[in-house]
Amino acid sequence: MYLGVDLGGTAIKVGLCDVEGNLLSTYEGPTGTEHGSDVVLENIAQYARKIVSESAYTWEQVAGVGAGIAGFMDIPEGFIKLSPNLGWRNVPVKRILEEKLGKPVKIDNDANVAALGEAWAGAGKGYNNLVCYTLGTGVGGGIIVGGRIYQGFNGMAGELGHIPLVPDLEAVDCGCGKKGCLETVSSATGIIRMAKEAVERGEHTSLALVESIMAKDVFDAAKTGDETAIRIINRAALYLGKSMAIVSVIVNPQRFIVGGGVSKAGDILFEAIRKYYRECAQETSQEGVDIVPAILGNDAGIVGAAGLNLRS
Amino acid sequence: MYLGVDLGGTAIKVGLCDVEGNLLSTYEGPTGTEHGSDVVLENIAQYARKIVSESAYTWEQVAGVGAGIAGFMDIPEGFIKLSPNLGWRNVPVKRILEEKLGKPVKIDNDANVAALGEAWAGAGKGYNNLVCYTLGTGVGGGIIVGGRIYQGFNGMAGELGHIPLVPDLEAVDCGCGKKGCLETVSSATGIIRMAKEAVERGEHTSLALVESIMAKDVFDAAKTGDETAIRIINRAALYLGKSMAIVSVIVNPQRFIVGGGVSKAGDILFEAIRKYYRECAQETSQEGVDIVPAILGNDAGIVGAAGLNLRS
Repeated sequence: MYLGVDLGGTAIKVGLCDVEGNLLSTYEGPTGTEHGSDVVLENIAQYARKIVSESAYTWEQVAGVGAGIAGFMDIPEGFIKLSPNLGWRNVPVKRILEEKLGKPVKIDNDANVAALGEAWAGAGKGYNNLVCYTLGTGVGGGIIVGGRIYQGFNGMAGELGHIPLVPDLEAVDCGCGKKGCLETVSSATGIIRMAKEAVERGEHTSLALVESIMAKDVFDAAKTGDETAIRIINRAALYLGKSMAIVSVIVNPQRFIVGGGVSKAGDILFEAIRKYYRECAQETSQEGVDIVPAILGNDAGIVGAAGLNLRS
Repeated sequence: MYLGVDLGGTAIKVGLCDVEGNLLSTYEGPTGTEHGSDVVLENIAQYARKIVSESAYTWEQVAGVGAGIAGFMDIPEGFIKLSPNLGWRNVPVKRILEEKLGKPVKIDNDANVAALGEAWAGAGKGYNNLVCYTLGTGVGGGIIVGGRIYQGFNGMAGELGHIPLVPDLEAVDCGCGKKGCLETVSSATGIIRMAKEAVERGEHTSLALVESIMAKDVFDAAKTGDETAIRIINRAALYLGKSMAIVSVIVNPQRFIVGGGVSKAGDILFEAIRKYYRECAQETSQEGVDIVPAILGNDAGIVGAAGLNLRS
């Protein structure tokens, strides 16, 4: 059995998986971010023991624990350098959790872990070469080769949200300090920004009636035929499709998997991504290649984290 | 001992390597392209036996034969689907050469093979995560992970020349059928095109006096301070640096190696590439990452081909 931990800023989700990546049970509790890293790591340990004690399995049957965390980290060392949403700097997560739990612990960033979850037990099952996008507040990415996360030289591979591709004239600043990154357009933040700008420009759109626009409002408006909303989703899809054309000549995956909140826009988003991919990608990168939604939803992070000890 | 074959349109180069990638001897003979694939493959077999018989080694000591070929191929099957410069369609190179030579044969495309040569015994020796550019008539690429060529789903990984990145307003048609690919600017062909356009526009440049401009003429003019030539090389470097910034967020290599004829432009090219890379790449993709010239020159293809049986 493998334990997976999805460590978020407000909630810790813990799951128990078998060796096939089947999620047998889950538990969710508060992170306790405000109490600092010691308390958060103790919470993880408690939730982990709790979920096992309430299951049909014993603690001895747990072969390893994995955790997905947003932030910059030294993955082999299991060391968080900086996690803005937890407010952490230099926290040796692997060492502390191994002491508390007496099990091997591995950590990785949240987007890589979600990609591994989909590869292991989700939309990528059985595929050797996969690229996963997680469209949330930002755009995360993960590259899976032979069932394992491809890390690159210092763990920065698959940072798909920071592919610079918006033309200079239309590019806006990205949180990373550069301009024109994919996530300035194709994340929830990018979609909300474009919607607010359209309203401010006085476009005739039902979004003008929404008090505090969320990405979901834009999807809902698009489904009722709102032209502004459709144009915004198209623009998010355009850069996703272009980025996939770029990714395809570099890593040549067989399947692109798209998950995260923004992927819930559904067919209107996926059909547009596929159209732009067909337009932009080399023919040789299209035959036998598809673009599909993630299927594990919020569980991808737990399942992938559980898989870290088996598949990294 | 391993035999490497660099199969070009006019010459076949054969080399004998030891298990460390040291090139012990080479032989070069005409390809005989005009006589068709049967004759070409027989020529390879003859040159291979010749180089071994003239060496201190016996045919029995040859563990395998590898060949680098320009074209579209099924790499695992060793089958050339289409090689425009050889005029081949559907040639089962691996099967025929294995019959002729009685040794295991592997093939790969010329850019991948050059990358493997540099990784094994050249500028990438000892590096785990490498990306190699070959700047020739086109722009070829190869991604090396753990000393092996990263192929992707159908062998199309590392096609760096077809990263689409020139803005629409300045993009020209690429041989691949798309527009704005890296190789439309940063190949010898791209440099010659830009030089001819500058002369046609009536720019004040010493290139106007050159009858049939070659890439080398542009480098020579740049070295004498010709502003048009410097601007052209800068533009080639700009898109190389931008492409490396893109590659770095996707595969996160530790080292970029740049070889091929255009790389002979030397410092003026490399300094500009490094400047644009610094401007465009994420900070986390810069620390400990460098951009260096290839060191094996024309031998990279033979050495890498020899390595195919050991490292693919």
